[in-house]
Amino acid sequence: MAYVDIVTALAVLQFIFFGLKVGQARGRYGVKAPAVAGNEIFERHFRVQANTLEQLVALLPGLYLFSRHFDPRWAAALGVVNRVGRQLYATSYVKEPAKRGAGFGLTFLPVLALIVGGVVGALRDLLAH
Amino acid sequence: MAYVDIVTALAVLQFIFFGLKVGQARGRYGVKAPAVAGNEIFERHFRVQANTLEQLVALLPGLYLFSRHFDPRWAAALGVVNRVGRQLYATSYVKEPAKRGAGFGLTFLPVLALIVGGVVGALRDLLAH
Amino acid sequence: MAYVDIVTALAVLQFIFFGLKVGQARGRYGVKAPAVAGNEIFERHFRVQANTLEQLVALLPGLYLFSRHFDPRWAAALGVVNRVGRQLYATSYVKEPAKRGAGFGLTFLPVLALIVGGVVGALRDLLAH
Repeated sequence: MAYVDIVTALAVLQFIFFGLKVGQARGRYGVKAPAVAGNEIFERHFRVQANTLEQLVALLPGLYLFSRHFDPRWAAALGVVNRVGRQLYATSYVKEPAKRGAGFGLTFLPVLALIVGGVVGALRDLLAH
Repeated sequence: MAYVDIVTALAVLQFIFFGLKVGQARGRYGVKAPAVAGNEIFERHFRVQANTLEQLVALLPGLYLFSRHFDPRWAAALGVVNRVGRQLYATSYVKEPAKRGAGFGLTFLPVLALIVGGVVGALRDLLAH
Repeated sequence: MAYVDIVTALAVLQFIFFGLKVGQARGRYGVKAPAVAGNEIFERHFRVQANTLEQLVALLPGLYLFSRHFDPRWAAALGVVNRVGRQLYATSYVKEPAKRGAGFGLTFLPVLALIVGGVVGALRDLLAH
């Protein structure tokens, strides 16, 4: 499971990195807390972090479930694809929000595979006992 | 623990479903990223997803803790009640936000029971060793 | 691991408490769902909860990874520091958002230590096998 744990940590570190970019954008574009709107570029960074948060809450259980009921190495590999996709998503969203689709797809499909694979594996394990 | 894993996956799948509804509402009501406001119906879908995210971060550790320190089947049952409550919450919130109370209660109480039960069980296990 | 489980539950309970404060502020300052803006004090409570959510998604895997690959007691201790820091963060943010820095630092550093420590431990365990 150490592979999965490393990918889990990388996902969290990437999310923390996106959070630091939001803080930086807050200063650069003069968006004072508690506001989270008012500057388009700040809002893009903010949405990248928010969307990554939404997905992390699906990815992490997915990594765990797939790893437990199927295979830790495949889980880790899907987690790596998700990392690359998230980086593409972040870069393209900040540049031009309408072009975030490809990056999103590359992150959404691995998450879906992990969760669906995990629940199928859990059902199989339940019926086998 | 396979029961708990299945309920975990169902909770995540329901959350992904709410996310897809937000994306759909984005298109239907013309709310362009990075905006997350400007159309009341879009905002309702958006808040359903956001509130579900908030609760998922309490539900998933709750399922794990209760399952580990009390009973996996009861944990799974509380998770199923939470699923039904979330569906009711989503439907009523989108129809009329002021009427989201019943659905919220049906999701909040199981989460509270899981966490409080989990911490009581963990304390008992700590003292027993 | 019971220490870590107790700190996990405390982190979630504190987050639920911040959520209840948001609900209370909704009523007190007349911010009707689905709106999440329009009153400065409400927005402060809302951002405290949102930021705590962001950090919880990094803290909980951090507690698990550090506990698994290093030491559960140190993980729990870092989690306790994070709880104290979060309370300071919440209080100072609601009073004066510009003064949230100290509380944030006291919550960010333990999370970073847990994740970085966790990934270093996981790499060591991977290479040792």
